[in-house]
Amino acid sequence: MATREEALFNGKQNYNYYQELLQEFIRIPSISTDPNHKEDIKLASNYLKSVLNKFGITDVRIMDTEGHPVVYAEKRSTNQQALTVLIYGHYDVQPVDPLELWESNPFEPTVKDGRLVGRGASDMKGQIIACLAAYQAISLTGTIPLNFKFIFEGEEEIGSPNLTPFLEKNKELLQCDVILNPDAGMISPDTPTIVNGLRGLTYFELMIKGPDHDLHSGTFGGAIHNPAIVLADLISGMHDSDNRVTLPGFYDDVIPLTERERNEFLKIPVTDSDIKRQTGAPALLGEKGYSPLEQIGARPTLDISGMLSGFIGEGSKTIIPSWAMAKIGMRTVPNQDPNKIYHQLKQYIEENVPKTVTWELKQFAGGWASISDTTNPEVVALSNALESVWGKKPLYKREGGSIPVVAFMQKILNKDSVLTGFGLPDDKIHSPNESLHLETWKKGILALIEFFYNFAGVK
Amino acid sequence: MATREEALFNGKQNYNYYQELLQEFIRIPSISTDPNHKEDIKLASNYLKSVLNKFGITDVRIMDTEGHPVVYAEKRSTNQQALTVLIYGHYDVQPVDPLELWESNPFEPTVKDGRLVGRGASDMKGQIIACLAAYQAISLTGTIPLNFKFIFEGEEEIGSPNLTPFLEKNKELLQCDVILNPDAGMISPDTPTIVNGLRGLTYFELMIKGPDHDLHSGTFGGAIHNPAIVLADLISGMHDSDNRVTLPGFYDDVIPLTERERNEFLKIPVTDSDIKRQTGAPALLGEKGYSPLEQIGARPTLDISGMLSGFIGEGSKTIIPSWAMAKIGMRTVPNQDPNKIYHQLKQYIEENVPKTVTWELKQFAGGWASISDTTNPEVVALSNALESVWGKKPLYKREGGSIPVVAFMQKILNKDSVLTGFGLPDDKIHSPNESLHLETWKKGILALIEFFYNFAGVK
Repeated sequence: MATREEALFNGKQNYNYYQELLQEFIRIPSISTDPNHKEDIKLASNYLKSVLNKFGITDVRIMDTEGHPVVYAEKRSTNQQALTVLIYGHYDVQPVDPLELWESNPFEPTVKDGRLVGRGASDMKGQIIACLAAYQAISLTGTIPLNFKFIFEGEEEIGSPNLTPFLEKNKELLQCDVILNPDAGMISPDTPTIVNGLRGLTYFELMIKGPDHDLHSGTFGGAIHNPAIVLADLISGMHDSDNRVTLPGFYDDVIPLTERERNEFLKIPVTDSDIKRQTGAPALLGEKGYSPLEQIGARPTLDISGMLSGFIGEGSKTIIPSWAMAKIGMRTVPNQDPNKIYHQLKQYIEENVPKTVTWELKQFAGGWASISDTTNPEVVALSNALESVWGKKPLYKREGGSIPVVAFMQKILNKDSVLTGFGLPDDKIHSPNESLHLETWKKGILALIEFFYNFAGVK
Repeated sequence: MATREEALFNGKQNYNYYQELLQEFIRIPSISTDPNHKEDIKLASNYLKSVLNKFGITDVRIMDTEGHPVVYAEKRSTNQQALTVLIYGHYDVQPVDPLELWESNPFEPTVKDGRLVGRGASDMKGQIIACLAAYQAISLTGTIPLNFKFIFEGEEEIGSPNLTPFLEKNKELLQCDVILNPDAGMISPDTPTIVNGLRGLTYFELMIKGPDHDLHSGTFGGAIHNPAIVLADLISGMHDSDNRVTLPGFYDDVIPLTERERNEFLKIPVTDSDIKRQTGAPALLGEKGYSPLEQIGARPTLDISGMLSGFIGEGSKTIIPSWAMAKIGMRTVPNQDPNKIYHQLKQYIEENVPKTVTWELKQFAGGWASISDTTNPEVVALSNALESVWGKKPLYKREGGSIPVVAFMQKILNKDSVLTGFGLPDDKIHSPNESLHLETWKKGILALIEFFYNFAGVK
């Protein structure tokens, strides 16, 4: 049996074992945004170390940052000429609230309808384990065709605030020929997908403060400008009637879509009703003049991710709240500068906020959008790998999501990432009842094995 | 000496005795919200019974409710034609925390600078004792000109949850010609005050539902209408640029202020900077064309008391929330029908909500506004009583708040309440170091004596 076939055989043989490792990984509630889970973050990084060790990789380092640690590991091929692949992943997960909407404990993985349900199953503990599985299946043949480097961070879900300094500091260590980032997904179980574009992200918290304490709405109502209404006015003004964002200069740096790009979008077999079904939204609505896939993949957005003011319990409490807060997240497209957007938002607020309140704007970590060329050798290697497992050519897709790390790595390591992953649109990542489609995930392990051999030039 | 003079003489003679009774009453820590004080609530109701008995009223009933008991008492006049006054009060008090801010034990009344300091001194044990004192001073003359009924509840400070069923059940028992509610206050020691208007309240919860789960704002952002933005649009549209409420027909039933009413408002010695100081708001803003006191006292409002959507924790979570909710409270003015307002709000939403979401509107219990004609015999009786004690005509004040019990009684007993009381703005009710201005309180006893005779038509 040729080495490649042997590795594929190993991969298939060990499916259950890999799934068990994944389940163990999911049990660790490594929620990066919540300080109460700091210990779990540590546990998750140690767990990764133990799996890497188990797979015969001895050089594993848990490296401190200002925030959560980075797990770095490497294994060199005996072939001195071997190319180097750097595999990126994040071992942190999103929060789980609202907990009451979960049908099972988010940290007690359960299999239901061919899916593994649990927080992080798809985003992206499943993808990390798929890469490690592909590595192990190859290493069991006795030889590896590439030098493997792994970098797993614990802060992706909070915007990777400490990854940039880490990359800067460890530039040499991270030298490689290709970066594999499996944090993207597929369009459907039958449609292997390569993501060649990502949107960027900028994220803000806007606080509006009125009276210095909650007021009795009878004693003062009528003479006091309600901070929740001021916030609603500001939010409402952020889009015009064509659903375009109104921040001054917001579209100035946006590159218009070419005819060719618009044609790529037309090939993607996702219909409006697919999106309606996946989201459960009664109807779609987006920027005028663009299809939903274009709106998601290639146009910038402004969304409210959270809003809080006053009394939110059962029943009624008759107050004018002292303050109102909104979380504002913007998805940006290539060439939009997060820092400029901060100033655009600030200018918008300054121009529209009344004198009856004070306000504060906090910016969270964000990142630039990215786009890559589909004729690059690593993209071709991945394309062929996916084709050999699925029996058809993959589609190229510009994703709506943001992987700031892709932009950071491009900037600091001067390397494009090749983006794939075996999550599906209905995996409910970031939502209750996140799950991973196991059949697709298993195919993914095989595709990764094929990719590594393809990229190494091993027939 | 005429009967009235004799009663006034008795009142003055017994000031110290009444004050001792009040001090004894304050010593009982009847905090209704705290289960640890359940026994004290019982003690307070028994204490009231003992005072009523001491004053020669034998028909005193401690009547159970689902919560704390109601003390009911009555004494009929020997005059078969006598009118009946129903005197309302509450014998429960607010909690005392933060205890460390009290300069003396809240339940060990002490006199300081002409004030009796202690929890409940002003709100409203002092007002109850003033009514009982006035009754006794009259009864000592050997004859009472009215039938007296007393209803003292023990749950006002927790929103009178069991008063409505009690009133329903005891409608017959509570029949009367006038209700006296001494739970309002005076503007200053030199300004006798009659509250002749209260705003009503209608309260709603509006729920906007978009996607059936929280969505990843990258994966779907751009093509999905964000429910938090839909809610903000709806809220923002509820006021126009003059800060008038835009619900269709909202002002149709509002009775314009008369020149005389506007002049009454001008007499009230409360400035814009007083309101700014009391609220801590950076600036005032209300309906165009009205002064802040008019906006609060005589104009209807729409306020957002609470708002919730999506992620509200620390940091960032990049979602399109599945839903957004607002608590909407409206203070209404006389002649506005809470039920019509429900339909106006519903119509507004129907006309403005997009097809991208579904919505639900829940209405909570509310009540009509009340205003009493200052020419009503009971108001004239009170006005003359205050004038004869203070030597000047009282001010009429329309309050912005709603006293639920006034609305309940109006609805169930079909009687307006006449609102007065001898508390002052600096009595610190609900706060540490609550106190009662004794000189004003003593004048109050005399004014109540005058009121009872005036209302009975006794010269």
